[in-house]
Amino acid sequence: MTARIGVWLVGAQGSLASTVVLGARAVARGLAGRGGLVTELPEVAPLPLVGIERLVFGGWDIAPTGLVARAQAMARDDRAVEPRLVDALADDLREVEAHVRPGVLEGSGPAARSLAVKRFLPSRETLAAVARRLGDDLDAFRTDQRLETVIVVNLASTEPMIPLVKEHRRLEDFQRLLEHGRRDRLTPSMLYAYAALERGFPYVNFTPSMGVTPPALQELGHKHHVPFYGRDGKTGETLVKTVLAPLFRYRNLEVLSWEGFNILGGGDGQVLSDPRHKRSKVRSKAGVLSSILGYAPHADVAIEFVPSLGNWKTAWDYIHFRGFLGTKMSLQFVWQGCDSILAAPLVLDLVRLTEFAHRRGEAGPMPHLACFFKAPMAVDTQSFVDQFRLLVEYVERHANPSRHGTPRKRQR
Amino acid sequence: MTARIGVWLVGAQGSLASTVVLGARAVARGLAGRGGLVTELPEVAPLPLVGIERLVFGGWDIAPTGLVARAQAMARDDRAVEPRLVDALADDLREVEAHVRPGVLEGSGPAARSLAVKRFLPSRETLAAVARRLGDDLDAFRTDQRLETVIVVNLASTEPMIPLVKEHRRLEDFQRLLEHGRRDRLTPSMLYAYAALERGFPYVNFTPSMGVTPPALQELGHKHHVPFYGRDGKTGETLVKTVLAPLFRYRNLEVLSWEGFNILGGGDGQVLSDPRHKRSKVRSKAGVLSSILGYAPHADVAIEFVPSLGNWKTAWDYIHFRGFLGTKMSLQFVWQGCDSILAAPLVLDLVRLTEFAHRRGEAGPMPHLACFFKAPMAVDTQSFVDQFRLLVEYVERHANPSRHGTPRKRQR
Amino acid sequence: MTARIGVWLVGAQGSLASTVVLGARAVARGLAGRGGLVTELPEVAPLPLVGIERLVFGGWDIAPTGLVARAQAMARDDRAVEPRLVDALADDLREVEAHVRPGVLEGSGPAARSLAVKRFLPSRETLAAVARRLGDDLDAFRTDQRLETVIVVNLASTEPMIPLVKEHRRLEDFQRLLEHGRRDRLTPSMLYAYAALERGFPYVNFTPSMGVTPPALQELGHKHHVPFYGRDGKTGETLVKTVLAPLFRYRNLEVLSWEGFNILGGGDGQVLSDPRHKRSKVRSKAGVLSSILGYAPHADVAIEFVPSLGNWKTAWDYIHFRGFLGTKMSLQFVWQGCDSILAAPLVLDLVRLTEFAHRRGEAGPMPHLACFFKAPMAVDTQSFVDQFRLLVEYVERHANPSRHGTPRKRQR
Amino acid sequence: MTARIGVWLVGAQGSLASTVVLGARAVARGLAGRGGLVTELPEVAPLPLVGIERLVFGGWDIAPTGLVARAQAMARDDRAVEPRLVDALADDLREVEAHVRPGVLEGSGPAARSLAVKRFLPSRETLAAVARRLGDDLDAFRTDQRLETVIVVNLASTEPMIPLVKEHRRLEDFQRLLEHGRRDRLTPSMLYAYAALERGFPYVNFTPSMGVTPPALQELGHKHHVPFYGRDGKTGETLVKTVLAPLFRYRNLEVLSWEGFNILGGGDGQVLSDPRHKRSKVRSKAGVLSSILGYAPHADVAIEFVPSLGNWKTAWDYIHFRGFLGTKMSLQFVWQGCDSILAAPLVLDLVRLTEFAHRRGEAGPMPHLACFFKAPMAVDTQSFVDQFRLLVEYVERHANPSRHGTPRKRQR
Repeated sequence: MTARIGVWLVGAQGSLASTVVLGARAVARGLAGRGGLVTELPEVAPLPLVGIERLVFGGWDIAPTGLVARAQAMARDDRAVEPRLVDALADDLREVEAHVRPGVLEGSGPAARSLAVKRFLPSRETLAAVARRLGDDLDAFRTDQRLETVIVVNLASTEPMIPLVKEHRRLEDFQRLLEHGRRDRLTPSMLYAYAALERGFPYVNFTPSMGVTPPALQELGHKHHVPFYGRDGKTGETLVKTVLAPLFRYRNLEVLSWEGFNILGGGDGQVLSDPRHKRSKVRSKAGVLSSILGYAPHADVAIEFVPSLGNWKTAWDYIHFRGFLGTKMSLQFVWQGCDSILAAPLVLDLVRLTEFAHRRGEAGPMPHLACFFKAPMAVDTQSFVDQFRLLVEYVERHANPSRHGTPRKRQR
Repeated sequence: MTARIGVWLVGAQGSLASTVVLGARAVARGLAGRGGLVTELPEVAPLPLVGIERLVFGGWDIAPTGLVARAQAMARDDRAVEPRLVDALADDLREVEAHVRPGVLEGSGPAARSLAVKRFLPSRETLAAVARRLGDDLDAFRTDQRLETVIVVNLASTEPMIPLVKEHRRLEDFQRLLEHGRRDRLTPSMLYAYAALERGFPYVNFTPSMGVTPPALQELGHKHHVPFYGRDGKTGETLVKTVLAPLFRYRNLEVLSWEGFNILGGGDGQVLSDPRHKRSKVRSKAGVLSSILGYAPHADVAIEFVPSLGNWKTAWDYIHFRGFLGTKMSLQFVWQGCDSILAAPLVLDLVRLTEFAHRRGEAGPMPHLACFFKAPMAVDTQSFVDQFRLLVEYVERHANPSRHGTPRKRQR
Repeated sequence: MTARIGVWLVGAQGSLASTVVLGARAVARGLAGRGGLVTELPEVAPLPLVGIERLVFGGWDIAPTGLVARAQAMARDDRAVEPRLVDALADDLREVEAHVRPGVLEGSGPAARSLAVKRFLPSRETLAAVARRLGDDLDAFRTDQRLETVIVVNLASTEPMIPLVKEHRRLEDFQRLLEHGRRDRLTPSMLYAYAALERGFPYVNFTPSMGVTPPALQELGHKHHVPFYGRDGKTGETLVKTVLAPLFRYRNLEVLSWEGFNILGGGDGQVLSDPRHKRSKVRSKAGVLSSILGYAPHADVAIEFVPSLGNWKTAWDYIHFRGFLGTKMSLQFVWQGCDSILAAPLVLDLVRLTEFAHRRGEAGPMPHLACFFKAPMAVDTQSFVDQFRLLVEYVERHANPSRHGTPRKRQR
Repeated sequence: MTARIGVWLVGAQGSLASTVVLGARAVARGLAGRGGLVTELPEVAPLPLVGIERLVFGGWDIAPTGLVARAQAMARDDRAVEPRLVDALADDLREVEAHVRPGVLEGSGPAARSLAVKRFLPSRETLAAVARRLGDDLDAFRTDQRLETVIVVNLASTEPMIPLVKEHRRLEDFQRLLEHGRRDRLTPSMLYAYAALERGFPYVNFTPSMGVTPPALQELGHKHHVPFYGRDGKTGETLVKTVLAPLFRYRNLEVLSWEGFNILGGGDGQVLSDPRHKRSKVRSKAGVLSSILGYAPHADVAIEFVPSLGNWKTAWDYIHFRGFLGTKMSLQFVWQGCDSILAAPLVLDLVRLTEFAHRRGEAGPMPHLACFFKAPMAVDTQSFVDQFRLLVEYVERHANPSRHGTPRKRQR
């Protein structure tokens, strides 16, 4: 298979997008290894996935530049990537930067607003026009770049939450919201998801934003027979949580309290320091414990913006638990990770696995990708090891497709 | 089923034995809850296990007292159990203390020697006489107390390691070592295991000592059709290790170094502060990583004796790992647990599950108990979550025995 | 000197007061050592301080009981004191409990309100009447118990902050607020301080509440020639901060961020979980850094209520700093202390040192006590070691008074 | 004053020397700030110290290259300095590298031996010849580079310890050891110190090696009227220790145990992983506690070589202490610092302050530099804050020399 695959990133000028593109090009040019890529594990390798060198990047954002500057900041300020890598790939980054198209500002929240470049963004569009414009961007990207398909991945800043209501349930009602310009009911991530699915492109939601969560949008995905999934990539503290929590569950040790304290800088830290944005994130992080433990311990997740940390996130978690004879004990952990470095390979993994599912004609949610998300769709388990087994079983089913029946062809 | 079951503890006057007995009696009398007992989890509850109130305790040690004093120290010095509990159960403890019979000193190592009470221990016995004496202790316990069977569990201090050689392979050769009085080849734990299996009693090795590791002893277990297992209970730092390591494996994050530093007081700390004893322990702790990761990272495990900590163990682990684009990151954890409190319920779990296997006529190693051990026999996986699944699958097979065929009757 | 000294505790039924009384009686009866008492250090020992056995306790609170129950909870739930100590001293505690008089509820904040026992508290008093009643309590305590003097120490829950305004400046205006019943301008701690100073009794403010902070009240202290001091006892995280910060200052290492995360249970944790109360505390904790460093780094102090911790407080601090050539490094610490156990001996120290100053005829603020407080009055330095030197110099001046001139007699 | 000052580094091709030179040149050329330099603090600024741009570097080592490669490794592998800085200053580094002269291998220990380049080092020299050769190197450096004086600073790897004996006491006897070629009694650091002092050059011992510790060498320093000092620069864990220990001392909190666990990579880590070298270091680190506390708590210092950490050192310390009523509590800290980055500015500070003392005609030990060392000579206090005050008082005495009498002229 030699076709080229489009990767359309929402938030394409951000730190994570910058690292995704930098990393993909570095791997493609043989300037970096494949460590951190789940799809390179022996358990997943049997799948005939698209080569990283065949990925072509573009995307939406609310500012016309950023990709190069972010990579330089990652190298210089955060010392998270080697400067020579950024130097060597600056042209590749600039080329992708030139393909970035205006996204949707309204509804992306107060913190995002401050990052927007007004002259780059269309004004006074109706919502229906926005949806059309976004869809046209995708079609144009596919045509211009001669791509087999385009995988849309949302990496944009966390949006403030809005409640899901009755009109989000059926596609018909959702489309009426669109026609009536109900900006109070439709967040940018929903519009992005709508545009992608409506044109037959898979959509993956790597942020805590709503995205494809409304049932109406899932209906749209099924209607056009495209796969979709989300939400909120599991990269750091929550990953450790979903690995550690089974220890307490399976040893019958009652978790009394699980307190998490996250400090981080960078654009993500800045956005999350706004309480309206933070709420979406905290909710996504908090849910995992009760699912694994079977009860809800006292649990808080605090997030503070600490500019000096840049893209590095430090999380301290204190777990207070009760053992035999009522004796209280504790486990603490300190996670010191670079968020974009942790997330970028997962984005590439998701692109490759989603493209594979799409190519095989699968549609709807992809529960075998649960291990990548904090709030995965259509699965019960939050235990990371159990989620990984879902992926392994998927690979086993598909690596020898003859044993499992003939796959359907893609439907576009 | 109303039969009484004997529990014969090696190291019966130590802190762990004291907590096992205290805990069992507290649960039996309704003075404490069942938190910390794996056998009380809904996943295991379907098995018809022996009630904790029907366990009768005795054991071997190298000192004639200790059970009561240890419990008092746990309450007063370590503040690990409630004083009122020790007061309420002091008579129960004293009764068990009176059933403790002399163990084997020679070969238990220099640190153990300092704890021994010479007048309590027989002198100038041949090894063959020792083995006979130990066997007779078990038979007498069963008869005197009118017990259905006796489960022998080794909780004694870690022995210094000796190499396994050719003569440990076949039972015939092993028995010749015994006859020839080869004290350089036979450690106390081997003698305890020999005595138990030779008389048809199951043997569980909760310490890092050799115990039933020699193939000759496993041959003996099979010959008399009794179940056995070991070794080295997984209660703290290593438990966390085998829970965390899959995170790095399944995210394709290369572990560069995994450094562990354990500080603990108490009898266990004192024994392990002797380098000859420490070596056995460290080896048992170190093996788990490479099994899970698929390669051996730089890894050290240090153990220091810190008297002020008493029975509390604090472990600091520093995990240095490499992510995408070669970026190094880290995870640290601090485990603060009370060793006897963590281990005691597992000992009761092992007694109950071993008795069940024995009652059903199972023999040989019990791989479904892997999740309880640092160096489990006859299983490949060191991942805690995967090991727990082995237990769950065992329960599923046995809870509805009709579906899985008729169990054999016990063979004694 | 054999006179008896009164200690009048505000918040006399709380955990800290309970530990103060328990500890004083335990020391007096020889049931506990003197570790933790600064006044027992060789540096301070030369002063002829009042013996702990001569302290007589009473106080104000908003509930009529608590002292015994708190001590029992400290023993049973928190395992912070030995149960046998509480048993042995229960009568002593009960006796003090009987001397507790109703305090002032209004203005103590929403969280305090929930702890109050209404029937115990007078209602519909004018503020002037309240002040009189409080003063009469002190005089009655002194007379009834035949005490040399009474030292008032505020240990009550942190009050919500109110702004200091013009009327707080001069005594005359302050008294007018009192007469006019300006409850919006007068917090309970001001009333307690007013009552004490007005009747000639020293007042020490161990909480973050206002207390003697208003200049008008300091004028009152000077007028009646009594010593006073505050505020906010320095027992845990902030103590560590004021010890560590000079490291960075004197090595010319720029502190980029200093993030503190405190988790605690108990009554104090519950009160501080209310944002109106928390603000007072956080402000008091935050000020110390810029004073030592000479600039204000990014610094946050978070406090979360974690019920399972009881009286134990765990603080995690992350200090991000920049060294030579701009390289960023970090220091983290985890403090695990029992708040009442840390604070109680300091309260006794403050009583003894304040009584000494009063006996010698000193009046006004006592800057030699700076090392005991987060926000000490009338000193510049926040460095703990430098503050301790102020105490040592005070002792040196007073231990050989002949060298420093004749002390004035007390003025009452 | 415009004279140029020589800085002669022992271990001139190591990571620390490399960072010293890189940093000095970066500051001199305005490419880096002065953060981390104690001599730039307002407390020290009043002294007329030599400008960093007037320092000229050379030194001894056992390999002919290293300075450039070490700087590159610090940039690339450790991400501890910016690559552009190394690029910009590579010529400066190379120039210094060319001035490095052969040091002394024998006696530097087994770990050092493996780093030596044999062909670079003279063989079959008598000890007397070695001492002469070293002295000649210093004189030649001064003459060739037209330097006012030369300050010798020992940065070489820690030597194995040898016992101090009678012959180390008097200069006469020491010189006899030299003549008799007693290589068992004379370590390289003693030879370096001897050569420096004998030719009238100040000597500062930044390592745990003996250096100027033998009284005979101090006699030599006094004889030639040169200042000297040592030993073992205080940069990380021990610095934190000497800052924190006063907290426990001044609060009367008994330290039960203070356990330290250091992990580090790099050349220093490699050398210290050899137990013969480690012993010197551990001894130097351990002494500080009992000096501050007034008693010796249980205390261990472990050091492990963890290659992946490179120049970064992580130290975990666990402090177990007892408070009021016997309650045990704890403080932990984690220090994550880059050793060379922490030490390099201190080396420059020591050069500047030593040059100043020398210029003013001071001789003998320089106790005002105590705050820079783990085992400072001729001072009692180990408390960092108190040590810093010694420096401030020195500055105050010298900044206005007219008030304190006329300084003597340098004696060379």
